[in-house]
Amino acid sequence: MVRQARSEATRKRIIISAVQLFTEIGYAAASLGDIIERAEMTKGALYYHFDSKEALATAIIEEGSEMMFGVFNRIRDSSAPAMERIIHGCFLVGDLLRTDMVARSGTHLLRAFGEYNDSAGRIYDRWIDEMSARVLEAMQEGDLRPGLDHRAVGETIVSAMLGAELLSNSTSSGADVLARLARIWEVLLPAVVTDDALGYFRQFLARESMRHTTEATDGDAAG
Amino acid sequence: MVRQARSEATRKRIIISAVQLFTEIGYAAASLGDIIERAEMTKGALYYHFDSKEALATAIIEEGSEMMFGVFNRIRDSSAPAMERIIHGCFLVGDLLRTDMVARSGTHLLRAFGEYNDSAGRIYDRWIDEMSARVLEAMQEGDLRPGLDHRAVGETIVSAMLGAELLSNSTSSGADVLARLARIWEVLLPAVVTDDALGYFRQFLARESMRHTTEATDGDAAG
Repeated sequence: MVRQARSEATRKRIIISAVQLFTEIGYAAASLGDIIERAEMTKGALYYHFDSKEALATAIIEEGSEMMFGVFNRIRDSSAPAMERIIHGCFLVGDLLRTDMVARSGTHLLRAFGEYNDSAGRIYDRWIDEMSARVLEAMQEGDLRPGLDHRAVGETIVSAMLGAELLSNSTSSGADVLARLARIWEVLLPAVVTDDALGYFRQFLARESMRHTTEATDGDAAG
Repeated sequence: MVRQARSEATRKRIIISAVQLFTEIGYAAASLGDIIERAEMTKGALYYHFDSKEALATAIIEEGSEMMFGVFNRIRDSSAPAMERIIHGCFLVGDLLRTDMVARSGTHLLRAFGEYNDSAGRIYDRWIDEMSARVLEAMQEGDLRPGLDHRAVGETIVSAMLGAELLSNSTSSGADVLARLARIWEVLLPAVVTDDALGYFRQFLARESMRHTTEATDGDAAG
């Protein structure tokens, strides 16, 4: 057990060192040698866990995705209306992206190497599945416009969120991701919810947006 | 003049070879040596035009973006309603992404290395500017829902399109990008246009979507 815990700690240290280097100088520029030096360990220790830089990238993608699904799926057990839970879940994911280096790095790697990594299609399809399932619940609760296809709505929400992350990352190093989410949701809401429910969900969005943006600013001031 | 034309031809050959290799094995795996070999030229000839792999990537990003802006801005001179021109412009960009290797590779590189490349923020901001300017025109023509912020709508459309490209690339190597655009526009339309205009633009979208999807299929059969 002690040996297993030590091995897990080593693996974690390698991942953190790789994430730091990928964030600082980019994936292409960081060599396994750089990562070994940053993690202060031997080549053997690194190769015991990861046989290539690609394997390391895949591990970061998988860990980051699991954290993000974990956070998004917290909304499953709530008794709140599904549409509230969807909006809240998007902000929770945005918070995680802002505050967690592994989640952020995993998202970048997934976006950059999706076409050469088998897990990318699977992870993105799972996002659309999870989102569409929540949209179907909102539909069954009577909050959505009649005639919508829940899969198309789920795909649209996921597409817009992915685009927001990409834009935020390129224009502000990810700092404005929550503000972008809020603006996009304001535009999307009337496409999705009924005219009767629009006022209610707009208020919910405004509160959610203010709460997360304030927390983000407090966090920045404290850090 | 002859020398200049030859130099331009050499530069083109390097870019095409790099795009082929980046597409086949990825940017990180392709070395300058591989590119020289593929282009069948000397190291000196390559270094005359590009002093690093990063410089080559930046050139592909710039050329791809210019092509995409060129295609999107074809909609500027039309006398059709701005909302039609916006939808048509998105499909034109989707067509180019499907058929042109440099545009596609530039988009991937921009997405992958945006955070380490100064041009990324500028290019994405320009997309939002161009889109928002067209949205403002549609607003002035009375086709959009009252109370919308044209910048927020422009940002939402660009985000959703970027997300669609990313999803399409990871799940179908870009083959289904036009079908994704069509589904997302069906969801977005009621968020953007007035209830009175919705029927008209839905019909326009259906025709546009059918035309581009058919052309894409014909193209595949012919190719």
